[in-house]
Amino acid sequence: VSLESLLEEKIKELTKCGDGCPSPVTKTLSCTSIKASGRLASCPSGMAVTGCACGYGCGSWDIQNGNTCHCQCSVMDWATARCCQLA
Amino acid sequence: VSLESLLEEKIKELTKCGDGCPSPVTKTLSCTSIKASGRLASCPSGMAVTGCACGYGCGSWDIQNGNTCHCQCSVMDWATARCCQLA
Amino acid sequence: VSLESLLEEKIKELTKCGDGCPSPVTKTLSCTSIKASGRLASCPSGMAVTGCACGYGCGSWDIQNGNTCHCQCSVMDWATARCCQLA
Repeated sequence: VSLESLLEEKIKELTKCGDGCPSPVTKTLSCTSIKASGRLASCPSGMAVTGCACGYGCGSWDIQNGNTCHCQCSVMDWATARCCQLA
Repeated sequence: VSLESLLEEKIKELTKCGDGCPSPVTKTLSCTSIKASGRLASCPSGMAVTGCACGYGCGSWDIQNGNTCHCQCSVMDWATARCCQLA
Repeated sequence: VSLESLLEEKIKELTKCGDGCPSPVTKTLSCTSIKASGRLASCPSGMAVTGCACGYGCGSWDIQNGNTCHCQCSVMDWATARCCQLA
């Protein structure tokens, strides 16, 4: 093996970063909204819920199963989960 | 070139990290609030909206143009965007 | 010193990452909820508040001292802070 290829191998191993992996330095926080009818709205796998919005002006909510917004007010027509990830 | 300088060159190239680049390992999530009168409040460029608060006890909001909180209740006096980034 | 150990030394130095440091590439956003009775709920040290929920359907809140949710409606029984970090 050449010194060059040995270097590349070693660096990839130690930084746990294979070919074409994005630089961690350039990662940013990226968020999107998932809206659903009813009182529940879930973030897709790999995203975290950072907050929720609810219909009928309701600001009472909790998170169920780690990734689902649950709007608590008695009557509810929609729920939105705000979902974020590093990307 | 010396082995040392060759190493530095190669590591910086492969980790896409030049002189004085901050260690990604020490990055943390940093958040701030932006409050505005009316029903709209926007996060500055480079920050993501993770949630919104509204006047009149209102918990119904949505995100417009990716970075603006829009409070939906019919009467509204203020809106606050919660804005986060990696720093 | 061997070439191998020199390489490891240099890479750890330049990426500011010692033995057993977690790969920044695999870091993800992790969130949890902290609920408290009354109108205040705080995130633990090291976590950032991304949003708040309040009792009585209230969606009016602000952040105090950087890490505490303060529910503003006149009558309030509980507050929840949504707290996130890189992990």
